[in-house]
Amino acid sequence: MKPVLFNNTVLRDGHQSMAATRMSTQQMLPAAPILDDMGFSGLETWGGATIDACLRFLSENPFDRLRTLKKAAPKTPQIMLLRGQNIVQYTSFPDDVVEAFVRCMCQNGMDVIRIFDALNDVRNLRTSVQAVKKCGKHARGELCYTTSPVHTVESFVKLGVELEKMGADSLGIKDMSGILQPQIAYKFVKELKRHTGIPLTLHTHDTAGLGAASYLAAIDAGVDCVEVSIAPFANGTSQPDTQRMLALLYEHPRCPEFDTKKLAELRTYFEGVYKELSKFTSPANERVDSDILIYQVPGGMLSNFRTQLKEQGMSERLDEVVREIPVVREALGWIPLVTPTSQIVGTQAMMNVKFGRWKMICQPAQDIALGRYGATPGPINPGILAQIEKQSGKKATQERPADLLEPGMEKYRQQCVAKGLPDSDEIVVLFAMFPQQIEALLKPKAAAPAAAPVVSKPAATASPQPANGQGARTLYVTLGGQRHEVFVETLAS
Amino acid sequence: MKPVLFNNTVLRDGHQSMAATRMSTQQMLPAAPILDDMGFSGLETWGGATIDACLRFLSENPFDRLRTLKKAAPKTPQIMLLRGQNIVQYTSFPDDVVEAFVRCMCQNGMDVIRIFDALNDVRNLRTSVQAVKKCGKHARGELCYTTSPVHTVESFVKLGVELEKMGADSLGIKDMSGILQPQIAYKFVKELKRHTGIPLTLHTHDTAGLGAASYLAAIDAGVDCVEVSIAPFANGTSQPDTQRMLALLYEHPRCPEFDTKKLAELRTYFEGVYKELSKFTSPANERVDSDILIYQVPGGMLSNFRTQLKEQGMSERLDEVVREIPVVREALGWIPLVTPTSQIVGTQAMMNVKFGRWKMICQPAQDIALGRYGATPGPINPGILAQIEKQSGKKATQERPADLLEPGMEKYRQQCVAKGLPDSDEIVVLFAMFPQQIEALLKPKAAAPAAAPVVSKPAATASPQPANGQGARTLYVTLGGQRHEVFVETLAS
Repeated sequence: MKPVLFNNTVLRDGHQSMAATRMSTQQMLPAAPILDDMGFSGLETWGGATIDACLRFLSENPFDRLRTLKKAAPKTPQIMLLRGQNIVQYTSFPDDVVEAFVRCMCQNGMDVIRIFDALNDVRNLRTSVQAVKKCGKHARGELCYTTSPVHTVESFVKLGVELEKMGADSLGIKDMSGILQPQIAYKFVKELKRHTGIPLTLHTHDTAGLGAASYLAAIDAGVDCVEVSIAPFANGTSQPDTQRMLALLYEHPRCPEFDTKKLAELRTYFEGVYKELSKFTSPANERVDSDILIYQVPGGMLSNFRTQLKEQGMSERLDEVVREIPVVREALGWIPLVTPTSQIVGTQAMMNVKFGRWKMICQPAQDIALGRYGATPGPINPGILAQIEKQSGKKATQERPADLLEPGMEKYRQQCVAKGLPDSDEIVVLFAMFPQQIEALLKPKAAAPAAAPVVSKPAATASPQPANGQGARTLYVTLGGQRHEVFVETLAS
Repeated sequence: MKPVLFNNTVLRDGHQSMAATRMSTQQMLPAAPILDDMGFSGLETWGGATIDACLRFLSENPFDRLRTLKKAAPKTPQIMLLRGQNIVQYTSFPDDVVEAFVRCMCQNGMDVIRIFDALNDVRNLRTSVQAVKKCGKHARGELCYTTSPVHTVESFVKLGVELEKMGADSLGIKDMSGILQPQIAYKFVKELKRHTGIPLTLHTHDTAGLGAASYLAAIDAGVDCVEVSIAPFANGTSQPDTQRMLALLYEHPRCPEFDTKKLAELRTYFEGVYKELSKFTSPANERVDSDILIYQVPGGMLSNFRTQLKEQGMSERLDEVVREIPVVREALGWIPLVTPTSQIVGTQAMMNVKFGRWKMICQPAQDIALGRYGATPGPINPGILAQIEKQSGKKATQERPADLLEPGMEKYRQQCVAKGLPDSDEIVVLFAMFPQQIEALLKPKAAAPAAAPVVSKPAATASPQPANGQGARTLYVTLGGQRHEVFVETLAS
């Protein structure tokens, strides 16, 4: 029996799950060479929400981060998380933009691309998988784990087989909510290994206190790799801590070898970073919360949720909103909860509670019902679909979402040129997803010509506008080079 | 395969581990009948630090609590934790006091007595085991789990066999530090079940994030019962949450059945209590802390340590002190770290660092070396023993500690009478352990005749006196019925 491999996530999912994705490249650099020397089979360093956070909160060019980290940790394969056709955004992009993005990151040193689709619609993974393979890099096809009347181990295994056929170099089980129980993990891994011939990684979160035990079960069942982080960016809503996993595997025939002194050093280092990021950390992320077993809310979503509800003056209604989530999921064909569906379902659940069930339906929820994100695992509630079709005047589609889109690169390139921005692929793909942010990054004065300190409005997100909050707004104020999120409310007059 | 049994600890270890033992009987009562109906095989409600906390902080007669809880939850066996010959204190008591204490609690409804000795010296359990059996109640002999060169699964199994021969009705593995790894738990349970014929319970803490996974391994190995709590008095430094354990056992052939709606109700109720006790709770108790795995120090001990070192102006020397612990343990025969030995070893480690190794030896550490707590698992360091014998003028003994003590009940009874206190066995056994507290409880004015609010000095503990802190003291101030711990420092003049 081979030792299980460990990928380390502290530089991506670790801080995304524990500190709102706010770790800066500078904060990563002292740890990168140590991490590189440890013997991890991969370091997750990029993708997910980090691109957005680089641009929105940290005034960093994400490709600079990639190049810098690649230089600082050249030996260990670097891993990133790609949302398939959504790249690292919330909606579908044309194939040529996806291909250009993949090319840019592969050219800059990315090695392993974890590719998922929130609906598990394999058509949304094909372009990315092919683009990665064209660059000679490793495409890991992810299965977004969820439970529902339409999801079974068998249905997931079928999906895994399809991804292998599509050309995925390995498979990942992505348990973003941390709801995978040990017995199911065991069966899931056994069955996938029986029906596929490529390596398998399990990625989970310890949110509900199941993660580490499910890793053990998966290791018993023959999983090749599990993903771990470094405390305090570990456990709770993040991945289990490396040191902890080693203790759990003590005397296990598949226990890998790691230098525990170096792990302790890393922990000490990251404790300092955790303190620096104290504005973005929360004891609620650190503790195990079995509520999640009832509500199926991913870790990151739950912490965002608390913030959003607070901003909406709805903090006391968390329970109600969270209880509405399965109602929304069922109506929308039992979609898994992962970016962007988690945000969409969360927003709709909030709106159902605030305005009455289905009184208002947010645009992205309408788009899901209309097939604009792809095929949902189960059928859309016919009554709600009819309501949406009537209100929007649009018809539901069965087509692959990207097939409805025109090629985008040249259009975005022209827009970059028109705005006086560089027209390299790297800038153009970022501009395609984050036009305001990339402009603010490259031409800070243009974004707010009259003001110093720099004040920029946040980009529109899937979060609903407060109904009676015209006087309330979030500002990002950069003062002495530090970006601050400021929520301003005025009293109703 | 029989479903695994769950004992619930929320009314004892749950709040002892998460909220400094501060849950009052009034806070327990609304939950007690619900807990009683759930199908737990036992409810831990008493013993450990609860007796001390009732008297010292809650102005409750602990026997009143016992009677009240027995009435509120009459169906489920109630469980308590007894420190063997130390009863619920830090030093040995004469046999007749131990016997009287056991009689009093058994007569008042206690059903299952968990009996342990910090040194695992079986002679310190015999009187308690026999007294419990004489009362027709259930004696559970506990094995205090620790790691050291002299502790092996085999040595623990030998101990279990001895306890069975002594008459224990069942055995418990008491993993107070939460350091028992799954593979060891599996082997430990397998071997104990092979060599003994009585039921076996595993008790652990999730402090290092190993607890729940070790429960699973123990369940696979055939353990009869594991102990769980109710969130938020669960996980972290406490026992794993019931709901979480059920999720972990989902589809496991030994998964028991519990009403999850009622569990959610209990959780909601205890969330309210947790908020009421917010002065005594801490995020540090809630999170998984792999520090323990680095230092091999129990969680509670580490947090006490941080406080003590701060008081000593030695905060920066935590690492040094913690590294000294194995040195002290080895010199003192590799004693496990559990009340009271954890306090004693911690204090001595601090003194070794502060004054130089073995320059000063605290009284309880001397007593351990001299055999006054019983036989240590390994030999005492001969050089240090010689030093202690010389300095103290005392000789080490091989005798059972309680054999050196005169019977105590009549002496304590006379003291009660002299102080105008009732002379019932119940009051006398409490007086034997907590003379000041029981007097303060029964005659609050007598304890502080001149003062209202009531001010009482804390009982002496094993913690060292601050060398230069003559002006510093902890006061307990009762104001409007609420007891407050106040630490007062005066500046050096």
